[in-house]
Order: sequence, then C-alpha cells, then structure tokens
Amino acid sequence: MRSHFCGVLSTANIDETVTICGWVDRRRDHGGVIFLDMRDRQGVVQVVFDPDTEEHFQRADRVRSEYVLKITGRVRARGEGTVNPAMATGEIEILGKELEILNSAATPPFQLDEHTAVGEEVRLRYRYMDLRRQEMQERLALRSKITSGVRQFLEAEGFLDIETPILTRATPEGARDYLVPSRTHPGQFFALPQSPQLFKQLLMVAGFDRYYQVAKCFRDEDLRADRQPEFTQIDIETSFLDEAAIMDIAERMVRELFSDVLGVELPAFPSMPYAEAMERFGSDKPDLRIDMELVSVDDLMQQVDFKVFRGPADDAEGRVAALKVPGGATISRKEIDDYTKYVSIFGAKGLAWVKVNDLAAGVEGLQSPILKFMPEDVVLQMMQRLGAVNGDIVFFGADKAGIVNESLGALRLKVAEAQGLVGEGWAPLWVVDFPMFEDDGNGGLTPLHHPFTAPSCSAEELAAQPATALSRAYDMVLNGYEIGGGSVRIHQRDMQEAVFRVLEISDEEASEKFGFLLQALQYGAPPHGGLAFGLDRLVMLMCGVSSIRDVIAFPKTQTAACLMTDAPGAVNAQQLRELNIRLRQSAAESGGQEQG
Amino acid sequence: MRSHFCGVLSTANIDETVTICGWVDRRRDHGGVIFLDMRDRQGVVQVVFDPDTEEHFQRADRVRSEYVLKITGRVRARGEGTVNPAMATGEIEILGKELEILNSAATPPFQLDEHTAVGEEVRLRYRYMDLRRQEMQERLALRSKITSGVRQFLEAEGFLDIETPILTRATPEGARDYLVPSRTHPGQFFALPQSPQLFKQLLMVAGFDRYYQVAKCFRDEDLRADRQPEFTQIDIETSFLDEAAIMDIAERMVRELFSDVLGVELPAFPSMPYAEAMERFGSDKPDLRIDMELVSVDDLMQQVDFKVFRGPADDAEGRVAALKVPGGATISRKEIDDYTKYVSIFGAKGLAWVKVNDLAAGVEGLQSPILKFMPEDVVLQMMQRLGAVNGDIVFFGADKAGIVNESLGALRLKVAEAQGLVGEGWAPLWVVDFPMFEDDGNGGLTPLHHPFTAPSCSAEELAAQPATALSRAYDMVLNGYEIGGGSVRIHQRDMQEAVFRVLEISDEEASEKFGFLLQALQYGAPPHGGLAFGLDRLVMLMCGVSSIRDVIAFPKTQTAACLMTDAPGAVNAQQLRELNIRLRQSAAESGGQEQG
Repeated sequence: MRSHFCGVLSTANIDETVTICGWVDRRRDHGGVIFLDMRDRQGVVQVVFDPDTEEHFQRADRVRSEYVLKITGRVRARGEGTVNPAMATGEIEILGKELEILNSAATPPFQLDEHTAVGEEVRLRYRYMDLRRQEMQERLALRSKITSGVRQFLEAEGFLDIETPILTRATPEGARDYLVPSRTHPGQFFALPQSPQLFKQLLMVAGFDRYYQVAKCFRDEDLRADRQPEFTQIDIETSFLDEAAIMDIAERMVRELFSDVLGVELPAFPSMPYAEAMERFGSDKPDLRIDMELVSVDDLMQQVDFKVFRGPADDAEGRVAALKVPGGATISRKEIDDYTKYVSIFGAKGLAWVKVNDLAAGVEGLQSPILKFMPEDVVLQMMQRLGAVNGDIVFFGADKAGIVNESLGALRLKVAEAQGLVGEGWAPLWVVDFPMFEDDGNGGLTPLHHPFTAPSCSAEELAAQPATALSRAYDMVLNGYEIGGGSVRIHQRDMQEAVFRVLEISDEEASEKFGFLLQALQYGAPPHGGLAFGLDRLVMLMCGVSSIRDVIAFPKTQTAACLMTDAPGAVNAQQLRELNIRLRQSAAESGGQEQG
Repeated sequence: MRSHFCGVLSTANIDETVTICGWVDRRRDHGGVIFLDMRDRQGVVQVVFDPDTEEHFQRADRVRSEYVLKITGRVRARGEGTVNPAMATGEIEILGKELEILNSAATPPFQLDEHTAVGEEVRLRYRYMDLRRQEMQERLALRSKITSGVRQFLEAEGFLDIETPILTRATPEGARDYLVPSRTHPGQFFALPQSPQLFKQLLMVAGFDRYYQVAKCFRDEDLRADRQPEFTQIDIETSFLDEAAIMDIAERMVRELFSDVLGVELPAFPSMPYAEAMERFGSDKPDLRIDMELVSVDDLMQQVDFKVFRGPADDAEGRVAALKVPGGATISRKEIDDYTKYVSIFGAKGLAWVKVNDLAAGVEGLQSPILKFMPEDVVLQMMQRLGAVNGDIVFFGADKAGIVNESLGALRLKVAEAQGLVGEGWAPLWVVDFPMFEDDGNGGLTPLHHPFTAPSCSAEELAAQPATALSRAYDMVLNGYEIGGGSVRIHQRDMQEAVFRVLEISDEEASEKFGFLLQALQYGAPPHGGLAFGLDRLVMLMCGVSSIRDVIAFPKTQTAACLMTDAPGAVNAQQLRELNIRLRQSAAESGGQEQG
C-alpha cells in the first residue's frame, strides 16, 4: 500500500509523489490548514492538507489521534521558519492529495506522550498502545537486532540451532517448576524447563559438538524486583573445549554485539576469582564502574576492646571491613539512618561510620559514634590503610563474613548510586573459581551453580574436602549484572556420582531423577561445557533501561499476570476432568483445613 | 582440543600432524595393526596404530565402540589397494602417534549401523545414541540451516523477530489447550499457545508492521500419525499488505530456501480456488505430482437407473465422480478389496470399478461388477470423457459430495503411491478462495480457518449468506502437504462482531474470550494479515523423510511421552498443594464414579 515509511522521507524525496500508511500522531488546525503528524514504525512525518483538495480535506478534518490512514501526496521542503530540527523528517513535509481512512480509533485510553503519567498498570493493560511509543518500538527493534547478531555470530562459529522440548520431565521436589497435567497419562505432569541444561548436555553426548538456542525458560517463583515467569536464554554448549576456549567464544560474541549494535568497543574482560570479588566488593557480580572497595581491618580490630568489632575480628568466620565513600562526609544523619535500615535487610545489626572532617587534626578531626571505643593509633592506621582524605565517610561492617560482604556489597551500590559515584561506560568482568558448594543452612551442602558443574579437583579430593572444592564455573558480569554464566560440565559418571554423594542424593534418588543422564554419561560422553546468557537482561542493559519489562513485548506483572489478556484465567470443570485434576477448595470454602 | 574435524581431512592435509577428537565408530585388528574409524559431527576418518607407538598402541588396543578419544597423528595417503571411494576421507588415513582416552563407553544399547533392527522405541529411549547416526546429524544440521535461512530472508525483508508469551490466557472450552496451574492465582490456569495468533495481531495494532517468530506451539490432542504435542511454526504477520503481497513474500521465502539449502529451483506456484481443488483432487492440499484427477459424471449418471449412482447424481449435495488410474487394470481383486476397506474410513459405502481391457471391443472389453446396471452408450461416453485407454482402471465414488471428495482424494494418493504414479520433484501450489465457514455437524457453522480471518465480502453480505461466503485465506501446498497457511485478518471491530454473530458467539462470550482483541480493534488497528509455516513438516519434506520425529531432536511418542527422560512423571503432594490442585482419584481407587 505504501511507497515509503514515514520516518525515512527526507529532502532527497522532494517533489516525489509518495504514499504513506500509518497512525495520526497529532492533528492540528492552523490558518485554515490541517497538519497531520503521521507515524509508523520508522518515525513521524508531517502532512499538510489545504482546502484545495476538498474531499480529502474534509476527511482530514474528521480524523483524530490514532486513526489509521493511507495518504498520497507530494514531498516538499518546509518553509524557512517552519523547519523542525528536533524531527528526523523536519526539513520536509507532504502536501496531502489523497487521504483514505483505513480505520478509525476511539479516544485512546492514554495519550502516548503522557504515558509516564498513567502508570505502568494502565500501560500494561493497553500494551498494544504503549508499544506504539517510539522508544518501545526502538527497544524491540534493538532486541530483534541483538538476537539476530547473536545468531549470526554463533552460526559463523559453527554452532547449530537445535530446539529442545518445552514439555519436559517433572521431578518430585522440582520447586519453582511450572507443571502441566498430562491428559494421556492421568495423574502425571510435564514441567516447563527452568533451562535446557540436561538436553544440551545430551546433545553433546549425541555428538553435535556446538549447540545454541535462543530458549524460553520458566520459573514459578515469587517475582523479585525484575524477574519474569518466562524469560529468554541464549543457551550455548560445546564439546572438546576447556573453560578458556568457551569463555573466549562468549567474550568475542558480546564484544562483537556491542560493536555491531551499539558501536561500542568494550574494554578488556578481566578475570577475578570469586573469593577476591567477595573480599573486595562483597559481591560475586561487582559493578567495576564504582571506584570503592571493601577493605578488611580485622587485624587492626583484633587490637581493640570494642566488642562489636573485636568479636568478628577474632572469629575465623567473621569479618570486619570498611567501605570508604569519597566525598561522603556530606551524607546526613537521616541518610545514614536509612542506610542502616537498608543493611539490616541483609542481616547487619548496625552500621558504624566515621566522617573524615580534618585529618590533619588527628582523631579530633574525625566524627563518629564509635571512635571513643578505639585507640587513636588504630584509628589513624585504619585511615591510612583506607587512604581516607578530608570529606570522606567510612562505613563499617562487622559480623559473620557472609553478612558483612552482602550488606556492605549492597551498601556500596546504593551509596554510589545516591552520591553519583557510578562511573560512565561499560565494565565487563569474568568471575571464576567459584566454590562447588555452599552451606544449605541445614548443615548440608548445596551446589552454588548446579550439580552438573565440574569441580577443578579429582573425585577423591572432592569427596575429602567438598566445602572448599572449587568448580570450573564462570560468570560474565557487566556493570554489576550477571549477564551470563556457565561451566565445564561433569562428563564422567563416577564424578557425577561423587557430586551426588556430597549432596546426599541417594543412588535411588539419583537414578529416579537423573537416571537418563547417568546412563548417557556411560555411553561415551565427550568433555563438554557451555554457558547461558540472560537475553532479557542483556537487552535491557544495551537499551539503557532499568526493567526487563521494557524490553519484552508482552511482559507479566510481579504477580505473574498478564493485564492485557487477563491471564491466568478460569477453566471449566470439563477441562479439569479431562486432565484428571480438580481444584482444591480454599480453606474458607470448605469450612476448614484442607487435607493434603 | 582438536586441530581438525575428522570428516574434513583430505589429501590436502597429507604430511600434516593433526589432532582429532571423536568417537570410535569401528575398531578392527588386521595384520598386527589397529584400525580405528573415528567419527565426529563432520564425518569419519581412519586412524592406524602400529606397535611402534607402544604405549599408545596398547591404549588403542583397549578401546571399544563409542569410546571418546583424542588422537594426534600424521595424515598420509592410503596405499594403492586400500583407498575407499565410499568414504569422503577414503583417500587418506592418520598414522596415530598419541591417543588419549577422554571417556570410555559401555557396550551401546544398539549398534548405530543396526538402528533399523531395534525399532523406534529403543532409539527414542536412547535418543542421544540415535542422534549420533550420520543421517540424524545431517537432518538436524539441515534444520538449523533452514531456520537460519528463514530468519535471514525475513530480516532482510524488514521483519522484526518478536517473542510472544508461552504462558497465555486459558479460555473456557479451550479444547486441546495444555493448561498450567498458577501458583499465585489459586484456581486459575495459563494455557500454552496453539499459535501466537492474537499476539501477532496485537503487534500489528501496536505498529510493528512486520513481525516474525520461530514459535513453539502446543496442542493437546490424540496424536495422529505424525503430530507432536509441541511443534514449531514460522510465524509471520504484516500490516498494510494485501493477500497478493503477503503470498509473494512467502513464496519468495520458500523459493530462496529451496535454492540456497537444496540447490533446487522450484517451479511456478499456481493458484487454485478451494472449490476447484476439491472438484479435481478431492482435497484442499492436492499433490500435483500425481497426474490423476477426479472427474464428475453426475450428468451421465442422471441417465441411469442404477440407484447407487443415480441417487447422488440427482442430489444437489451429492456427487458421482470417477478416478482413472493409468495402467491400473493389473490391480488385483485383493487390492481392490483393500482399497474398498480404505475408502470406508472416509464414509464411502463401496468402491465401484471398471477395468479397461479392450476398448475396441466396446463394453465387452470392460470388466466390472456394475456395468450391467448401465446403458452401453453412457458407459462409452464416460470412458471417452475420462480418456481411458486399455490397461486403465476407473474407480467411482457416489455419495454426498464431501464423502466422495474425501474418499476418492485419499484413494488417489494411496493408489498413486502403490502403483508408482507419484511424479518426481516438487509441486508447489497456492490454494485460495476458501469458504469462511463449514458445517459444524450440529446445524451451525464453524470457521474453516479461525474466526479472525477476513471474508472477501462485506459484513452485510456475510450476515446474509454466511454459508457461501469466501475468506481471504491462502494455503501453501507442497507435494500434497499443507506447509503454510494464513489470511488477511479482520481489522475492524464491526466485521469481527459480525463473524462472532455467525458463529453464534454471544456478545458476553465474545467479550469474555476476546475482549482485549475487540478493544484493540477499536483503537486504530491497521489492515493486516500473515501466515504460518509448519517448520517441522517443511524440514521433513526438505530432508526427504516421512516422519517429523526424524527432524526433531527430542520428539515425543504418539501418547505424548518422552521415552528418554520418562516424561510426563509423578509429582508430590506438596507441589500440587502449592498449585491449589489435587488429582482426581481414578474410578477404581475411589470405588465408584467420581463426581465432576
């Protein structure tokens, strides 16, 4: 129907007769003439109808915002004073000759240029309207371009795009699995995959050598700040490569993506052991744009009597650390109180601080509620170690190391944000040498990644010292976000069984849950490993937005609902009967506690 | 780890020292020397270990089929008599120097070269073994290439890859929907999409103009011969294009795919109205490689007394048609009996036939149980109309037109297959001008495609004559398979409501089920349309195989089960409780009939 997209017209088209199709972005009457800003996927162009074209002028007079029109007219330069440099097509306009109303539009639920005023709920309910906004159009176009770039890169590297099932095996205790009742197998269920992990490993056992997939994954959990029940993963697996080679492919992919899509040349990707990241940044995904580090002062605090610090300093599992905020002496008591509340979320029992007003005056020049508990030389030694200068504030954490790291790590981000201490640009990073396991809180161990991750030691060493064993896992971090992660996998059955033993998974349970994997490992599984990127988050970062909902066409809310289609919804008794399930009555309905 | 893939080595590599990684395809001892055929994704190469490399020779002596090895050695030309022209690498071999066993392998559940003997069930259970077969490797590689080709074509045409949700709205009466109980919304369910139809239409309303997605779709139905509960669709939607323009894009895509991937230049795509396809081939997806047509003989049969033919010939809804099979006079009585049984599946009450032995002898030269019921001139007129020659057989169908078309249409395929009458090559076709609706068997009408398909008439005409209204739908047919189909959609609310009225969907029901669509149509929906290709079937055809299971990495069985992972499976009571559902007890367990 069209000869050109609206947004691509320019002075190069002057005197051409063009036909455009699109939406009325704005309509104005001015001096007996009608101006229509016509919008399509590529942008906006101004069309002018004057009364000479009587029939079409009258139609133009009838149209309103968001009407769908087809317009034919002649492109002409705008007059001297009417050029609009803010508009890509601002040097020209179309003198409308013919106008066809392809569809009318009721008054929109909200004006597109007032979307911030209406709140996200209204925008999600009328998502097809919200998506008309130019920035949403651009974001989804960028997402498409990023996905396409990923595919091209990986295919050029010999990766095959292989689809794995969405209807997969449900496992007992599969917490967070979405379940799908089977009609043909009464009482049994499929699960939607949290990732294609086992399938991609089996593809390696099958000899495909290099697999990738842009894969939908599902997790039924209480949705934290920015999670979605369904999300998209760039899923990669390779055979016969070690971690260095796999990380090299992943790094080149991200580098090429930033270069091709954003024109950004990423800096080098440093590699940092997990232990160092926790020690220096209190996080396994440190934002290196922030020039602030946690500094251990345990040795100094072992010399003081102040119990709050001395206790953790003497405790092998404790830590006392300081976080210096440059220029932070201006932070108010009120703000400090807020930060104290904030770190309590992570288990910190308080937030000690020292403001550095005048270092030349010694401890007299420091302001703090805790100085009175410490010898002067310890305080000054500490200031020296921190490289503190006048105008800084220093925060302290003293507790079990985990609590100190988590609370100061989180505080580091929050303060940096508030104080404008987050640097510009892109700070990528590999975090490596993760522990195999972490404390499960019940005296046992749980995998830090997943139980298919290869350890960097032998099966015997793993069995002897599981708590300190390291894995061959690696996470790619960008600006404080984990954008990808993976590992070399276990490819030998005895090692896999050794890991299951550490996890106290019985042979019977292992065989019930992962029998097909164990079996596959004994029929000639190649060494293999891979990783997965969170596409939504990667696109979010590349779009410069702060929510993944802004880069998903039809996202769900934090209660996992779609406001536009009103999903989930009710189904009828017949459907449930066919699926061999029934609803549990609520406690209220049944008048008492429901039995399991 | 490797320097080369096994399958790519050639005389160009002679005297190079190479390292390969892969699986032992075959191991032979011969004259004190060990021959290993090493296999990877790219093919097979022969490695020779002689006793000079003592340590490695001993290792080579230990390896068995499907062991995973890393081998370094020197490429050399094979000796005169030992060149193997059947093998891509048959002119060379590797003289092994070093051998590392990366993983051992238990005796495989079946030998890869004996896969046909073990049956599909064993192969599905050990799918990771079955996928090691070279033809499975090639098929999935071809699938990846086809998907990639589709993406590249569509992206070059300005289509954006946009993901639509998998967790979508469940609707009451959504037969064949897979349902997913919601944890956060007790008693409510998501449905897995049978297609992204409504979402892609909403993307057009949102102004994306050209959308595509390689989309997973789901259908919970008794799996006929070759269906899968989850399947993949190349899903396409465009705005501001009419059917001719949409069909042009689709046709160019398929043409380019065949050219790029198979090196095949497809012939022209003729366009055939649905009515003509049914009349001539008894099918809306005729296989044009078969040079046989249904020929109507109603006018002739109105002249005979033979009730079986005369009745349908006189009935406005009846049809009497003949199918001439060239050279079919050799078909035995036993075969005719089998065909008679076959057409009865489609409701035919019998299968009359005439063998043409000697036309010159008039009716005397014809052999048939029904000739005695017909005047000679009618029989001869009929033979003339059919262009029958000696050696042919003619089959007849006489019943309601639907039954005649379906049974003779199916017979046409079956007989052509059996008689070797299916031509070579590719026969593409567009079928157009479908009816909007078909009889739902209960005196009502049901959409032939789906209720969002635009009619080619006005809303008033539709309301007046719904049964004869045609739609703006089109199906792409290839060699008797519908590989794609679509339509121009309804983009105006009043037309959509008119269709719902024909379907006897009340305003309330329409609003409950499709309220968001109706609402979207009134806020400026552009004219739009699109289509969807069944990727599995397209790949199946392009691979030259007869089951889509052969082009899916991890397919399900006809009872929708995965034999490898043993899905679906049981879940525990706690999981069900969290999802607010419980299992229905079976009638046996509860000792009686279960209430709805």
